[in-house]
Amino acid sequence: MTVLVFLDPRHPEGRIADAAAPALLATDLGATRGDGVFESMLAVGGQPRKMGAHLDRLAASAHTLELDSPDRGAWERAVATALSEHLLRAGTGEAVVKLLLTRGAEGSDAPTAWVSVSPVPAGARERSSQGLAVVLLDRGYDSTLAERAPWLLLGAKTLSYAVNMAALRYAKANGADDAIFTSSDGKVLEGPTSTVILAVEEDGVKTLLTPELESGILPGTTQRALFDAAEAAGWALGYGPLEPVHLMEADAVWLVSSIRLLAPVTSIDGTPISSSPALTEELTALLHEAL
Amino acid sequence: MTVLVFLDPRHPEGRIADAAAPALLATDLGATRGDGVFESMLAVGGQPRKMGAHLDRLAASAHTLELDSPDRGAWERAVATALSEHLLRAGTGEAVVKLLLTRGAEGSDAPTAWVSVSPVPAGARERSSQGLAVVLLDRGYDSTLAERAPWLLLGAKTLSYAVNMAALRYAKANGADDAIFTSSDGKVLEGPTSTVILAVEEDGVKTLLTPELESGILPGTTQRALFDAAEAAGWALGYGPLEPVHLMEADAVWLVSSIRLLAPVTSIDGTPISSSPALTEELTALLHEAL
Repeated sequence: MTVLVFLDPRHPEGRIADAAAPALLATDLGATRGDGVFESMLAVGGQPRKMGAHLDRLAASAHTLELDSPDRGAWERAVATALSEHLLRAGTGEAVVKLLLTRGAEGSDAPTAWVSVSPVPAGARERSSQGLAVVLLDRGYDSTLAERAPWLLLGAKTLSYAVNMAALRYAKANGADDAIFTSSDGKVLEGPTSTVILAVEEDGVKTLLTPELESGILPGTTQRALFDAAEAAGWALGYGPLEPVHLMEADAVWLVSSIRLLAPVTSIDGTPISSSPALTEELTALLHEAL
Repeated sequence: MTVLVFLDPRHPEGRIADAAAPALLATDLGATRGDGVFESMLAVGGQPRKMGAHLDRLAASAHTLELDSPDRGAWERAVATALSEHLLRAGTGEAVVKLLLTRGAEGSDAPTAWVSVSPVPAGARERSSQGLAVVLLDRGYDSTLAERAPWLLLGAKTLSYAVNMAALRYAKANGADDAIFTSSDGKVLEGPTSTVILAVEEDGVKTLLTPELESGILPGTTQRALFDAAEAAGWALGYGPLEPVHLMEADAVWLVSSIRLLAPVTSIDGTPISSSPALTEELTALLHEAL
């Protein structure tokens, strides 16, 4: 059950569309060139979580692609319309809210923008909370590339996700659950659909670490919320560069994302790593309070 | 005027659809993840050019993405239906034929496949035939990556073309007409929508050169047809590795593609390079004979 709401100047609250019926032109550059940007966020009890951070990142991604985005208010109203409709049809369960923006149909000057709301896939979070076997996959880039090559759109969340999807398929075909990309100069980057976080406890100081944004990774909205909450709770924070050895030697490693939240990594390339149900519980609680 | 024909098991000759009406589900993974593959080819007088080579490459791209493709016959019949319809509506002018294949709607197991036929954009070939100013842009990869990192889908023509489109925008914003990607180890790769070819004349021997496929570039169907025709006409052939210095010192450089054919490059990063109207004419004639 997916609710679909298009942003449409003639419908200030958004135009509800039938998700089971065709809704996009076949010449839409989103469909023919992956030319657009998107966000996925979680809604609980009909309320979107950290929508501000997602709208910020959508605007930043659109800016990188030189794409006109509808204003924040239009997105917010369309999300509200979609969530109301979803509450009516599906009740108060958790939902995945996607924001999508494409360059529009070929030859038109109008971007296409829509919101979709659908139930959280059953069991996905439960399965991942039991621990992920992860493979390290070379992303091919060096970690200093992003700044000097803006045409590569590193750090923008584009619709061109074929490589991310292929990396997940490759991981699964090789007996793993997920992947962590590394750079050609041996740095830890990110998961295909997640941010990498690790915890180190030393001399009574608990530290959360994540790769630095300058390495061309996506700024994680869940990582940001978690870091803020952990800092307020007395954790120290640190930002890469990180290498695979840091993952192997950490007290715990997670892949974090808006829908799956904290998913503990239990092995890397077949080698078991340290994990900590207590830390997962502590940080998950902090995250829930913060959202 | 675009003619749209969907491949549909219930319509063996293809199902004609209205290109001005929505035709794709908003949950199609082509639109939401750039998860699919495509081809663009030229039709002249209602006849598609080198369709076999395009269907071969589409099948190879689909295989790389682990995507089920309809069989060749279904594609051929849909192309024939679309071209007949285009002849009726628009006459015998040249046309762009696109083949598109996505992983289908989220949660469905059926890929989405369609053919579109539209007129060749007016003046595009004429403008490019007058010579292209090109910038070299770092693609970020090293030229040996493709073989050891299949999850990066190098060499597959996927719908995830946001970077290719961004590279063209970057070139135009910087006063150029097009771009040539280079690898992080300094090799010439390809254009965002074209193959790089250069000609060298030495001691009476004319040689055509192009970067080697192992560097992770797309196998160019027009490059292949041109090389076969040139070889039959007495040219020598060579395959990279090529570096920017080879472009600067060649007797002529072209970007070749199915729609634009041979487009001579007249400058690289602002420095004029040698070009040869006579060679462009000779090779264009060879190409037209071959197609």
